[in-house]
Amino acid sequence: MTTPAISRYPVPALEDLPDDVRARILAVQEKAGFVPNVFLALAHRPEEFRAFFAYHDALMEKEGGLTKAEREMIVVATSGANDCLYCIVAHGAILRIYAKNPLLADQVAVNHREADIPSRQQAMLAFALKVALRSAEIVDEDFAALRAHGFSDEDIWDIGAIAAFFALSNRMANMIGMRPNDEFYLLGRVPRNR
Amino acid sequence: MTTPAISRYPVPALEDLPDDVRARILAVQEKAGFVPNVFLALAHRPEEFRAFFAYHDALMEKEGGLTKAEREMIVVATSGANDCLYCIVAHGAILRIYAKNPLLADQVAVNHREADIPSRQQAMLAFALKVALRSAEIVDEDFAALRAHGFSDEDIWDIGAIAAFFALSNRMANMIGMRPNDEFYLLGRVPRNR
Amino acid sequence: MTTPAISRYPVPALEDLPDDVRARILAVQEKAGFVPNVFLALAHRPEEFRAFFAYHDALMEKEGGLTKAEREMIVVATSGANDCLYCIVAHGAILRIYAKNPLLADQVAVNHREADIPSRQQAMLAFALKVALRSAEIVDEDFAALRAHGFSDEDIWDIGAIAAFFALSNRMANMIGMRPNDEFYLLGRVPRNR
Amino acid sequence: MTTPAISRYPVPALEDLPDDVRARILAVQEKAGFVPNVFLALAHRPEEFRAFFAYHDALMEKEGGLTKAEREMIVVATSGANDCLYCIVAHGAILRIYAKNPLLADQVAVNHREADIPSRQQAMLAFALKVALRSAEIVDEDFAALRAHGFSDEDIWDIGAIAAFFALSNRMANMIGMRPNDEFYLLGRVPRNR
Amino acid sequence: MTTPAISRYPVPALEDLPDDVRARILAVQEKAGFVPNVFLALAHRPEEFRAFFAYHDALMEKEGGLTKAEREMIVVATSGANDCLYCIVAHGAILRIYAKNPLLADQVAVNHREADIPSRQQAMLAFALKVALRSAEIVDEDFAALRAHGFSDEDIWDIGAIAAFFALSNRMANMIGMRPNDEFYLLGRVPRNR
Amino acid sequence: MTTPAISRYPVPALEDLPDDVRARILAVQEKAGFVPNVFLALAHRPEEFRAFFAYHDALMEKEGGLTKAEREMIVVATSGANDCLYCIVAHGAILRIYAKNPLLADQVAVNHREADIPSRQQAMLAFALKVALRSAEIVDEDFAALRAHGFSDEDIWDIGAIAAFFALSNRMANMIGMRPNDEFYLLGRVPRNR
Repeated sequence: MTTPAISRYPVPALEDLPDDVRARILAVQEKAGFVPNVFLALAHRPEEFRAFFAYHDALMEKEGGLTKAEREMIVVATSGANDCLYCIVAHGAILRIYAKNPLLADQVAVNHREADIPSRQQAMLAFALKVALRSAEIVDEDFAALRAHGFSDEDIWDIGAIAAFFALSNRMANMIGMRPNDEFYLLGRVPRNR
Repeated sequence: MTTPAISRYPVPALEDLPDDVRARILAVQEKAGFVPNVFLALAHRPEEFRAFFAYHDALMEKEGGLTKAEREMIVVATSGANDCLYCIVAHGAILRIYAKNPLLADQVAVNHREADIPSRQQAMLAFALKVALRSAEIVDEDFAALRAHGFSDEDIWDIGAIAAFFALSNRMANMIGMRPNDEFYLLGRVPRNR
Repeated sequence: MTTPAISRYPVPALEDLPDDVRARILAVQEKAGFVPNVFLALAHRPEEFRAFFAYHDALMEKEGGLTKAEREMIVVATSGANDCLYCIVAHGAILRIYAKNPLLADQVAVNHREADIPSRQQAMLAFALKVALRSAEIVDEDFAALRAHGFSDEDIWDIGAIAAFFALSNRMANMIGMRPNDEFYLLGRVPRNR
Repeated sequence: MTTPAISRYPVPALEDLPDDVRARILAVQEKAGFVPNVFLALAHRPEEFRAFFAYHDALMEKEGGLTKAEREMIVVATSGANDCLYCIVAHGAILRIYAKNPLLADQVAVNHREADIPSRQQAMLAFALKVALRSAEIVDEDFAALRAHGFSDEDIWDIGAIAAFFALSNRMANMIGMRPNDEFYLLGRVPRNR
Repeated sequence: MTTPAISRYPVPALEDLPDDVRARILAVQEKAGFVPNVFLALAHRPEEFRAFFAYHDALMEKEGGLTKAEREMIVVATSGANDCLYCIVAHGAILRIYAKNPLLADQVAVNHREADIPSRQQAMLAFALKVALRSAEIVDEDFAALRAHGFSDEDIWDIGAIAAFFALSNRMANMIGMRPNDEFYLLGRVPRNR
Repeated sequence: MTTPAISRYPVPALEDLPDDVRARILAVQEKAGFVPNVFLALAHRPEEFRAFFAYHDALMEKEGGLTKAEREMIVVATSGANDCLYCIVAHGAILRIYAKNPLLADQVAVNHREADIPSRQQAMLAFALKVALRSAEIVDEDFAALRAHGFSDEDIWDIGAIAAFFALSNRMANMIGMRPNDEFYLLGRVPRNR
């Protein structure tokens, strides 16, 4: 049996990559124990790779009112709405780890209304899904609803911007047929993985 | 009458911005004669500003098989599908200028099937709209259809990546209520503006 | 370069038309300075032409609670929802002229929620779009909402009837590939055109 | 029990109507044995009444390649797609009578694919439904498909124009809550009614 | 003219059926005067036949807070939403008989908002249609809305379960092209049929 | 922390259930090591419970041209389309075990086009999803397409009937808020679970 392709496009060898791109990939490999395929698939275009991960980091690794688990919940919920296999599987793993909850990612990916989360996070995901699916219909009342749950305007930007960034990410992954690493499927599901 | 807000979020004063962000804004003002509101609205978050425009430039200003007018056609068509006022108006102006055609932007924004473009560009926009609206349904046959029109695989990445990037851009603009500059509405419509 | 066709169907010569149809066309040419293509394209069927413009005039040129600009806003918003290039471009021009506002037509065609209009007109357009897109869901509460904004029941009939008439008009234009006159794109955008 | 209203709007008394409108209503009453509610409901606006029925007659009573039953099939199929109770019930009755078939109207209203009609009429209804539901997607290939079934271009105009006219009619009926006469439900279903 | 097929699949002869299946069919024939085609079409698979009608009877013939006419209204409304010709025609007939109302079935099949029913039954059908079309969006508030109309939780289960069972039934009928018996079209429409 | 409810409805104690229902539940507990919540939640209505599982067994445990893994693939794909958390999680586990593949269930639930399956199974799932989502559009050509992949007409009935049965199951689960057992999330993902 042959190894399935991880992209419809050629995947560069590490040694052929610009130094900064290779360094970023080696760093994530060091931390995670493997190289998530998004790094290899997007390295086909180093300029876009740099912008993609700079944007990602600006949204996902900043300080702010949202926890890391909440940020990943937004990713998983909107990727579910966009039917993006890579992002559901990869970010589902990260969500399980951050939330220390082996069930939450599948719940959020399928139907956040049935997830074990409080109404504040339900409102957060409802807004994220509106940005993902019907952004032209956003009105001031949507902001008011989130403020009533205690979100600041900067939190709301974060929620919407993460949904918007993964609108890009989901479409890239779907277009190039990006394949999730096998490792992600199990990560965070059993005690020794957490 | 008060000046309408250009964003639901505060717009920073130029003098309060990091040097690189301010420099970018002054450069575009120098070239265009005014500062497109997307620069001011996104400068609210300098880190995201930098990543956004790095990504934009990597896709829109690179060499490649697509002309600049074709890239803008993709922006306008997918922004039309997403009902994004800012991007339709601002990139419609740029498309008129690049294509030296005062009618094309409105045609492409409303219904590319009625635009004055050859079947090759019709196929390009059909693929871009599939990435924008139904990316999970993309299959190998979609690539074959574009190759039959003479597009290389790198051209196809460009088409899809531009559609994906503006999926992000449209959602950000809709979420924050980004207002197009009045100047854009007329640009490229009359000889002296071209 | 050949002149693009204005319809998938033959366009009659003026001298071959019945007197009343030709007279109507000459009258509009006298007033507008050119013959909007809808007159020529629909003259292919004189009986339908007469009924179409009689209906149009009954709705658009009557006295009543709606201003002429408001009537055109309904046309442009619902034509936007139906992706009708002819009606967006031609009635967009008329809206700019009636409203003495060069920006309003593009705003309303793309997303009325971002248009520079008061909440009364927002409610008017929301109802028009419901008639255009989901008329079977109209309930008494929709009438109550408009009455709360000061619309009379006769005004509401006007709003809904204009949306319904352009449901017809948009479908005819899309079916026969009706091409907007080049003149419309610029009308009302610059001072000398107003 | 009170008689249900036939419209959300006042229904004029016959004696208060303009002579031509009253004459038209009395003529249809003479022929049908009762006054279809559409005549009474639309008589609230005599100018629109005249244009509506002039348009209706131009499409439904003209000579041409489509039979009267085929014209009514288009009405019933597109009214089904628009969930218009009045038009399904009233024109369903007319279709049963013209086609001398007590089953056809319900079949066509629900799902033309399951109706007892040949492939030529299936193609006719598929085009009519495209005009009704997705007219912006009509392309030259749609015309070619109908020509392959033997339809002339004038037949195709008829098909599309009837679908477009009832896009208007369905929306008016839904907006004003037009109630079908009880008589229509049974007409054409039993031998003595045919 | 040949008799139209009642299914895309072979229809067994009565004498070839297992005794219990044949007995059930003869019993319904005795009662109704003819064999509804659903019995013959599903008898192609006796095991599934038994489960189907056991489920049907458990929902439709049980005691409970919903009347028999209300149960049939749920069937007709959701079958209308699913465009299922067999179920609309056959259960429309049953609804006319149970409700002793020759108009109600067509009203409910097309648009329950225009049916002659009180707000309690409007709420019942709105919930049934949500189960039929958007069940993942059901939330506790939907239950509260029905309780406010006096429905018990067991009634609500009945409403939802009937909608869910006919989601199955409609799909089977559509898949195999199940044809309604001609008799159903007229049943319950004229006094002697009631 | 309290145990989350497994249903919006009361869950009966085993000792209060009819003997046959309790026996079925104990048998599945014996085999699986735990009682899947669908058995407890549906036992609220023993008559419906019996019909539900009789139907389930008739489709899922019969002999025939489809493998057990293929049947579960149909369940998972259509449950994905219906956003049914219970069925995706529970039948995803069963699919992993039957297919001896820890990745397949997540692939099929999100986007079968990206699953590691041959074109024959792709065609099977495309038909199942058409039954699930657009059954009124099924035409003879859909059958021809499956026959071209070697499916018999009885196989096609199986595919469609499973999709139809889970249209019921998904709606029931969504309506009552059926919660998947925690055990299912991990089953079949690690060697010792297979």
